[in-house]
Amino acid sequence: MNVLIVHAHPEPRSFASALKDAAVSELTAAGHAVTVSDLYATGFDPRVSRADFTGAADPAYFEPQREQQDASEHDGFAPDVKAELERLFAADLVLFTFPLWWFSVPAILKGWFDRVLVMGAVYGAGKVHDTGGLGGRRALLVLTTGGLATGYGPGGRNGSLPALLAPIQWGTLHFSGFEVLAPFVAYGPARGGDDDRAAVLTVWRERLRGIEHETPERLAPPGA
Amino acid sequence: MNVLIVHAHPEPRSFASALKDAAVSELTAAGHAVTVSDLYATGFDPRVSRADFTGAADPAYFEPQREQQDASEHDGFAPDVKAELERLFAADLVLFTFPLWWFSVPAILKGWFDRVLVMGAVYGAGKVHDTGGLGGRRALLVLTTGGLATGYGPGGRNGSLPALLAPIQWGTLHFSGFEVLAPFVAYGPARGGDDDRAAVLTVWRERLRGIEHETPERLAPPGA
Repeated sequence: MNVLIVHAHPEPRSFASALKDAAVSELTAAGHAVTVSDLYATGFDPRVSRADFTGAADPAYFEPQREQQDASEHDGFAPDVKAELERLFAADLVLFTFPLWWFSVPAILKGWFDRVLVMGAVYGAGKVHDTGGLGGRRALLVLTTGGLATGYGPGGRNGSLPALLAPIQWGTLHFSGFEVLAPFVAYGPARGGDDDRAAVLTVWRERLRGIEHETPERLAPPGA
Repeated sequence: MNVLIVHAHPEPRSFASALKDAAVSELTAAGHAVTVSDLYATGFDPRVSRADFTGAADPAYFEPQREQQDASEHDGFAPDVKAELERLFAADLVLFTFPLWWFSVPAILKGWFDRVLVMGAVYGAGKVHDTGGLGGRRALLVLTTGGLATGYGPGGRNGSLPALLAPIQWGTLHFSGFEVLAPFVAYGPARGGDDDRAAVLTVWRERLRGIEHETPERLAPPGA
């Protein structure tokens, strides 16, 4: 497989980074081709703007979706967006490794969604969900939390993780055409010891060895 | 009241910007003091980094929450974060005006959450939800969507808007101590005509005239 890892943590020695590093080594050892987009390391700009494009469909009024549609049709993306799109479309499997901040992805990764999952190439004009532009590819969220699992369980104050991740799992990844694998969640790694973290990495490496044959989740519109 | 509007749209003539402008004029006319943080106009950087702080609690390992906690205790925030925190704590009501991108806030606004709603001043050490650091303040999401309301209704492919907004309404705003008002949603303004948009602005202005006396939503952990 071609695997793209989109990584979003500012600290290279964080546990989210350790999960990314484990994926690189495990998948490479299994013979897969792995590419990493390390958003903090490369200084990825999360802000949708005119700088995403080499031209302008409408220079007088900036409507991002219109510009994305136009750039999709005329090879008009700026180099950083174009490079990410090429990596994305070359991938069979995309991992997103990040810490859960405000029950969502860090802004730098949200900006990757905003700027790279573009109207035109990825969705629009009938391309959505089962017919999305990223059909035939699989995606997997790999995340760390600050709090323990109990906060996300029955009676927990945070709510359930599937409900909190629905805008991403359903509204972003599945919307774009991905088949979505169950998230890999490391709860509160900063609260445990080295042994706890090593045990999580062992489980993660074991999962990676079978990931090519995992069955995607069955998702549905949240709250419907 | 002191009102803070945190605005996140790159096009000053967008409908999200029109909703922001209407709020400024309506609330100012009613005698309220209104401050606008226009994130695109000021070039707000959405990326949590060491640049958020004037010093470092741990120069060897960057753990954002630890640095936020330390900066809260020692007046250690960089000028842009400090300015936003001062505006936030001075506000009785905070409006967030934005287009819904990927069923969430644009990255530039997610970065405002990540960088300004800090551990220490805003939450942590028992400060959460009903005891959150922003207690006594109210918050209101004001958003535009690309799609029409039917996409968010029963049987709609997007899911329900309350479910999609739960990570923000419950997991971010209520978590921080805000009392949360019902979102104001303009569905698909780009799909209608000038009359349709004018009608939405009329409804919005009417709502603003009574906003001081609105009853907050009753929220609960999503999916629990």
